[in-house]
Amino acid sequence: MILTEEGREERGKSLFSLARMAVSGGTHGNELSGVYVVQEMERQRKETGEHAWPIPVTTVLSNPRAVKECRRYIDKDINRCFNRATLSSPITDSSPYEVRRAQELNNLLGPKGSTDAIDLICDLHNTTANMGLTLIHYTTSDWVTLHICKYLQTKITKVPVRVLVLDVPISDAYSLESVSKHGFSIEVGPQPHGVVRADIYTIMKEAVDLTIDWIHKFNSGTVFEGGDVEAFKLIKSVDYPRDPKTRTLTAAIHPHLQDRDFCLLKQGDPLFLSFSGETVKYEEEPLHPFFINEAAYYEKEIAFHLGKKMMLTIPSVQVQKD
Amino acid sequence: MILTEEGREERGKSLFSLARMAVSGGTHGNELSGVYVVQEMERQRKETGEHAWPIPVTTVLSNPRAVKECRRYIDKDINRCFNRATLSSPITDSSPYEVRRAQELNNLLGPKGSTDAIDLICDLHNTTANMGLTLIHYTTSDWVTLHICKYLQTKITKVPVRVLVLDVPISDAYSLESVSKHGFSIEVGPQPHGVVRADIYTIMKEAVDLTIDWIHKFNSGTVFEGGDVEAFKLIKSVDYPRDPKTRTLTAAIHPHLQDRDFCLLKQGDPLFLSFSGETVKYEEEPLHPFFINEAAYYEKEIAFHLGKKMMLTIPSVQVQKD
Repeated sequence: MILTEEGREERGKSLFSLARMAVSGGTHGNELSGVYVVQEMERQRKETGEHAWPIPVTTVLSNPRAVKECRRYIDKDINRCFNRATLSSPITDSSPYEVRRAQELNNLLGPKGSTDAIDLICDLHNTTANMGLTLIHYTTSDWVTLHICKYLQTKITKVPVRVLVLDVPISDAYSLESVSKHGFSIEVGPQPHGVVRADIYTIMKEAVDLTIDWIHKFNSGTVFEGGDVEAFKLIKSVDYPRDPKTRTLTAAIHPHLQDRDFCLLKQGDPLFLSFSGETVKYEEEPLHPFFINEAAYYEKEIAFHLGKKMMLTIPSVQVQKD
Repeated sequence: MILTEEGREERGKSLFSLARMAVSGGTHGNELSGVYVVQEMERQRKETGEHAWPIPVTTVLSNPRAVKECRRYIDKDINRCFNRATLSSPITDSSPYEVRRAQELNNLLGPKGSTDAIDLICDLHNTTANMGLTLIHYTTSDWVTLHICKYLQTKITKVPVRVLVLDVPISDAYSLESVSKHGFSIEVGPQPHGVVRADIYTIMKEAVDLTIDWIHKFNSGTVFEGGDVEAFKLIKSVDYPRDPKTRTLTAAIHPHLQDRDFCLLKQGDPLFLSFSGETVKYEEEPLHPFFINEAAYYEKEIAFHLGKKMMLTIPSVQVQKD
């Protein structure tokens, strides 16, 4: 129940309760905070039983073979395999491991787009970029996930908590969390791949615990007030300067840009420093860079993404009564 | 020529000139600063010809297959393959790629322990640990390399320049630089593997340029004054707390220890933070930790090394006249 300025009682937008959520780690096998958060939650379940959390939580290691080898993936990036086409492609002897595993996960947590799909997947990732805690969505209109973001922004004060919107139609959406009704992924950085840092692990674990906390409060009837949520919308990607023949890098991210994820990039600001010492400058409209110098994006030919800041207005929400 | 306190002229210890050196990168294929330093030097040679540097410099990518795949190694760590036993092992169809390649490099730059061996190899590495610029040696009695360290310590002021001594007999020494008469490796960090950071690249390039500079000055007759050089000697390694059955980590480096390479670790100081939140403390004699949370050492079961600080006294040196 919310009291408006005029003193009237106003109920929030009614939404279905969230019966079950999943926490997935190791979608990229060398992003270790998520692997150890899932491991710790499984230890907690073993110790405390099914009532370790106030709501039912499924925990899953998405790419166990890649985790074992501490690599991003074995045959191909599994987090690009959850689009409709790949999920419905026939499996043959030559199918990549990750396509098989994506279909298994879709059976376990989906099927994607169906009423049987799990209510929420929180997929855990790390980045070598200085992105603090970033919550990534496919849409600007999922009030559940945006309310969770708002809640995390209020509760977590040690690092910046930012919201990133990819704005891809859900049928084209290719990542694991798109299998659930309300999914989002959590990126925490900077952390080198193949390393777990206690500070980064702790932030990720806190974000997961607070997400469970929000869902429990929501299911129990708490009304969450609406308001504004700042978000960044992906506009485009920028590649490194490369040798036109060999495609090898000829420059690195400029020291003035390195680690400045989400700061405004203006015309004339340094972008790259070539290995022979020349500076390449930014020449376009002011935008916000992120995923600056992410290790896994070298092969995708991405030095950083650029996004636009925007304000999303979300309504008050509360659980729909039976 | 050096004037002693009493005003007598004193010549430094006479050592052979250094006719040729090698700069090697990509010994670990995902340590990218070294890969790009070698690439840039090869570009400089193409642009300027053989006189790009005042002394002859061989440049080499040690593990080109691993560089191409951006992995530490293909079959096994090449930087553990340069001991006498592995260099003389017979090559068969099932020999690991790195054993073949190590023998190729020994033919190119060695043979190890022979008079034909190249004078100096400077092998380039990166670490995820916060180790600044660290120069690693096998012995406390190589005046050439220790003088180069002293020179780098004087000239480089942006980051700490430290000397690390492994003190392994040269015949057991297993890393690439042990093939040359006076070798050392350069570690620069923190840099995630699979990433090149401009700040780290620039420090490494400066260290290589200054090494060439020192050798040129030495060969030209400059007398380098002796003195004290602070160094750290490896004492032992410490592993992560692990589950006794699965061998999986149960704790990460404690936030109070993370990034504090070479700072003194005293009894009672925090070492690890378990994934459930308990702190493990240090209980032994005060020592200096380094390679704290190096990604590549998880599989070697090393969370960090511990070393003792010591002072080495080195004599003045000058080139031996014909």
